[in-house]
Amino acid sequence: MLTAIEYAAVISSALYGVLLAARKELDVIGSITLAFAIAFGGGTLRDLFLDRHPLFWIANVHYSQIVFVLAALGAFLPRLTHRLEPYLALPDALGLGLFSVLGTLFAVEAGAPLFVASLMGVVTGTFGGVIGDVICNEIPRLFRPSPLYATCSFLGAWLYLILIRCAVPTGWAITGGIAVTVILRLIAVRRGWSFPAARLSTDSP
Amino acid sequence: MLTAIEYAAVISSALYGVLLAARKELDVIGSITLAFAIAFGGGTLRDLFLDRHPLFWIANVHYSQIVFVLAALGAFLPRLTHRLEPYLALPDALGLGLFSVLGTLFAVEAGAPLFVASLMGVVTGTFGGVIGDVICNEIPRLFRPSPLYATCSFLGAWLYLILIRCAVPTGWAITGGIAVTVILRLIAVRRGWSFPAARLSTDSP
Amino acid sequence: MLTAIEYAAVISSALYGVLLAARKELDVIGSITLAFAIAFGGGTLRDLFLDRHPLFWIANVHYSQIVFVLAALGAFLPRLTHRLEPYLALPDALGLGLFSVLGTLFAVEAGAPLFVASLMGVVTGTFGGVIGDVICNEIPRLFRPSPLYATCSFLGAWLYLILIRCAVPTGWAITGGIAVTVILRLIAVRRGWSFPAARLSTDSP
Repeated sequence: MLTAIEYAAVISSALYGVLLAARKELDVIGSITLAFAIAFGGGTLRDLFLDRHPLFWIANVHYSQIVFVLAALGAFLPRLTHRLEPYLALPDALGLGLFSVLGTLFAVEAGAPLFVASLMGVVTGTFGGVIGDVICNEIPRLFRPSPLYATCSFLGAWLYLILIRCAVPTGWAITGGIAVTVILRLIAVRRGWSFPAARLSTDSP
Repeated sequence: MLTAIEYAAVISSALYGVLLAARKELDVIGSITLAFAIAFGGGTLRDLFLDRHPLFWIANVHYSQIVFVLAALGAFLPRLTHRLEPYLALPDALGLGLFSVLGTLFAVEAGAPLFVASLMGVVTGTFGGVIGDVICNEIPRLFRPSPLYATCSFLGAWLYLILIRCAVPTGWAITGGIAVTVILRLIAVRRGWSFPAARLSTDSP
Repeated sequence: MLTAIEYAAVISSALYGVLLAARKELDVIGSITLAFAIAFGGGTLRDLFLDRHPLFWIANVHYSQIVFVLAALGAFLPRLTHRLEPYLALPDALGLGLFSVLGTLFAVEAGAPLFVASLMGVVTGTFGGVIGDVICNEIPRLFRPSPLYATCSFLGAWLYLILIRCAVPTGWAITGGIAVTVILRLIAVRRGWSFPAARLSTDSP
């Protein structure tokens, strides 16, 4: 089950990379690199910060093969990829939930304090997209007013930590953390829940 | 004493993150992330480059809690933060001095050659701001003509290395390195000392 | 021989950094930092991803001294550096070949699957320039339609892997991988071989 979610998340991340590359009119090298950055960026930071080696995409060759093939094909079929975009919201939310909880779990295992562990969950779940946006010379969407994303990840990570502390079995705690992240994210997208922008002047936008 | 400087530096870095986020009209997630990037970016690169684990902000949970709370509050009080900005020059200069000398010291301890150690001091002292600017889609201020910053860090790092080589006790060498960095930085800001821009054409600016 | 190529590649990377800094009208700090980023960025990512310590530029102080002196001088002599640019294509192609093959070799040694090893070769050979462009707020040239670069690196890495698999002696396999990368790169520059941009709309460019 977790493995299925992981593959779905990697595939949807890769397709987001292809779409971002097509919006920026990059070539196939840009498409492949953005797909890697978005799919592997968050987990790579987590592994480097926690000193986990080999990195998850070095240990399992299937991830990079899938991303490579999808991104290379997608670069030559951008309009087909574009048509798939509406179907990516669910696998993306599932991936956000899974990576947030797994990042938190790995950080706790590595001996990190609980608060740091929840931040590691958020980094794992969200920083692939941040790295992709920074490479593309965009201010990351994660930081601008838009439907809640990091917040869902943070709350899912904390639910997982609370359930573990309450001696709930690990499998249930993982499921609970993922479920809360996914449900919050899907509601935030539908309702347009977002934080306001901070401003230094008092002018209306 | 060093601990007090460290907390002052982390707090002023976090507030710079809040201000940068407000200038770019980011939301609270952007404010928190920029505060983390500016406060922890340089030290994180140092720890990764030198293979020091756990990272300093994983080992000590207080740093990330302070940054998180300040940045979250600051995002909703940007004008109050703005009014604090004039008071940040001194804690920022102190932090530059402390992190430059500590980065150099850790690199020497890890067996790095002296020249590399001085570079590690500069990276530790200055790269938080560079990472913040890159995330915000700005050419880092550190690299454009503006009051000397990396140069003060480099000279402070070298004074520390020279004092250690002259068998000055570590405490005095650290104090000397920090003092020189802070004094040079404050004079550079006041006098507007800066390097000129390199240019390929002969036109006047 | 390999050492000579390595120094030539580091020198040409450093000069590219100086030129990029001059184009962006940065000061000497920008020039030095970009020179370091372009010369050391790809190898540093490789060493971090593969957990190789000390990093190659920490182990050998000569690299950082050369880059520092060249970039500092170059910042004050941008037009002289500019005049050297036509002569950088060959050392740059040699460096691309060398770093691609060495990155692949180190990854195989570290136990990475062959496909991941070839990607590590490409990262080692090409990501210095990507990091430099990202710092300068440019969409990396590597990802936009322009003469093949990452592709030459990828094919050179695979030729090396195939020759090793065919029990060709290591020295010959390295030479073959480098030679193919260099020849493909020089032809791609001369003929203007490039991939097209992906586009979402059907408009002509």
